[in-house]
Amino acid sequence: MRCRFCGSKDVEVHLRMYNLRLCRADFVSFVKKRVSYAIEKFRLFREGEEVVVAVSGGKDSLGLLHILHDLGWNVSGYFLDLGIEGASDVAKRVIEGFSKRFAIPVHIESLVDVFGWPIPEVARRLRRPACSLCGTLKRYYMNRFALGKVLATGHTMFDEAGTLLANVLQWKVSYLSRQSPKLSEEEGFARKVKPLVFVTERETAMYCFFQGIDYVESPCPLSKGATSRVFKRHLLALEEDMPGTIIRFLKGFYSARKQITFPEEERQGLSPCRNCGYPTSAGDLCAVCRMKAKLESSPA
Amino acid sequence: MRCRFCGSKDVEVHLRMYNLRLCRADFVSFVKKRVSYAIEKFRLFREGEEVVVAVSGGKDSLGLLHILHDLGWNVSGYFLDLGIEGASDVAKRVIEGFSKRFAIPVHIESLVDVFGWPIPEVARRLRRPACSLCGTLKRYYMNRFALGKVLATGHTMFDEAGTLLANVLQWKVSYLSRQSPKLSEEEGFARKVKPLVFVTERETAMYCFFQGIDYVESPCPLSKGATSRVFKRHLLALEEDMPGTIIRFLKGFYSARKQITFPEEERQGLSPCRNCGYPTSAGDLCAVCRMKAKLESSPA
Repeated sequence: MRCRFCGSKDVEVHLRMYNLRLCRADFVSFVKKRVSYAIEKFRLFREGEEVVVAVSGGKDSLGLLHILHDLGWNVSGYFLDLGIEGASDVAKRVIEGFSKRFAIPVHIESLVDVFGWPIPEVARRLRRPACSLCGTLKRYYMNRFALGKVLATGHTMFDEAGTLLANVLQWKVSYLSRQSPKLSEEEGFARKVKPLVFVTERETAMYCFFQGIDYVESPCPLSKGATSRVFKRHLLALEEDMPGTIIRFLKGFYSARKQITFPEEERQGLSPCRNCGYPTSAGDLCAVCRMKAKLESSPA
Repeated sequence: MRCRFCGSKDVEVHLRMYNLRLCRADFVSFVKKRVSYAIEKFRLFREGEEVVVAVSGGKDSLGLLHILHDLGWNVSGYFLDLGIEGASDVAKRVIEGFSKRFAIPVHIESLVDVFGWPIPEVARRLRRPACSLCGTLKRYYMNRFALGKVLATGHTMFDEAGTLLANVLQWKVSYLSRQSPKLSEEEGFARKVKPLVFVTERETAMYCFFQGIDYVESPCPLSKGATSRVFKRHLLALEEDMPGTIIRFLKGFYSARKQITFPEEERQGLSPCRNCGYPTSAGDLCAVCRMKAKLESSPA
């Protein structure tokens, strides 16, 4: 079998989904083309705009940052150090190494500096699971940093398809009507985009390997079997049985959505948090400022 | 644990989907209520109408026929003997025994009598897979017999959910817009209904067991791994992980459909077959009459 694009005998990758065998160089350019395709198809951003990739230290976000930089976009990284011992410190070192090696700027903020407490302590003192608190805090600080720019995340095809399957199995009509690789900017919110929507995790892993990008492989030690993972796992099993199911599902949705009319969504009114100005629907204080207030009044 | 309904200690059934433990008598009446609920919710049929249940000899269709009869509906069975040796003959004996034992009339037609050839010979001579030919022929003769009455089939909740999942994963918008436990009657077509849409196969199996209904357990020897089974299998695996997923998916769809607008379907124009009058979109002869013509001119 030869590389489908250049005919070379050095085939290193077989993509079952496309029944495509490629040499290393053509695989790398194939992945980049998938990213460019998503950027154009959904008009994620355009020349002159500044893009911030939220990096965690994993293959998807670092791969994305590398790809966008290589494609010539005006891009930098943002890392929020959550203060999880044995994980955040490792990720930070990996990201600093990446930034130096590829000469791509990454802005690093520490949750302790900007918020006051590391995630494990927040979870312990508020007696709540770390994942939901972490999601709220990351969204908040990522958004704050990216305001006026474009915020890109490393969600891949299977992440998107897993979310879509969850929304379909539960017929969350309002989520379905909004699910998209692009959420436009609004007052107080940066535009959020997912340029890896047509790239799989296996592909980002191989991309990083071929480009010599080091990344953190272990999942967050605080995360456990979230429901979303269940859907994703079953979707992967289906993909194993019928390669191409996931991409057909996702692309089919984006095209069917043009024909399907979802009901007008009743969006909750948003008003600025009286403390920090972040748009909130939860009263006069946003979720993060409320969290802070609780922590300040809770015993250590 | 006691029976949720009567408090008896003789719990024989645990329905994980509803987290419901029931004694035998209450389980039997629970299944009947699920059927009555579907009949009312979707207005499948009403008093005075004559219902024909297409029976195969399996638990679902025989269970359904028994339930509808027990609920007092004006119901009878219809069995098409497909002429598959070692299967159709067994099914026929089982159905005749059922009919006699419960005094429920079942009309039996033989494909050889009405069409001229048994299924295995049709498949062999036309060199086509038996399943698709069988589907076409069954739909045709069932419909012909049920014309002017209501045709009920034994499709269960997981059959419907499996079809729905397949239609969603492939975003077959026109199928989605029509998927329903009731297809209304049209010129040349009987109304088709699925009263077991809220009943599972495990439940029909237990219902048959408790009522002493014998049924054929082995699947058709000519059928192989159809794609639809793949979707159903994965859906069952998801249900195992998260009991209730399937019923939420299906009921969620029926209710979301009221809010979602699918595009107007362009239906192909139907005209009566010039030979038998059956509505067809495939030209002047319907699929069954074309099949017959081919067989008559093909070598034995």
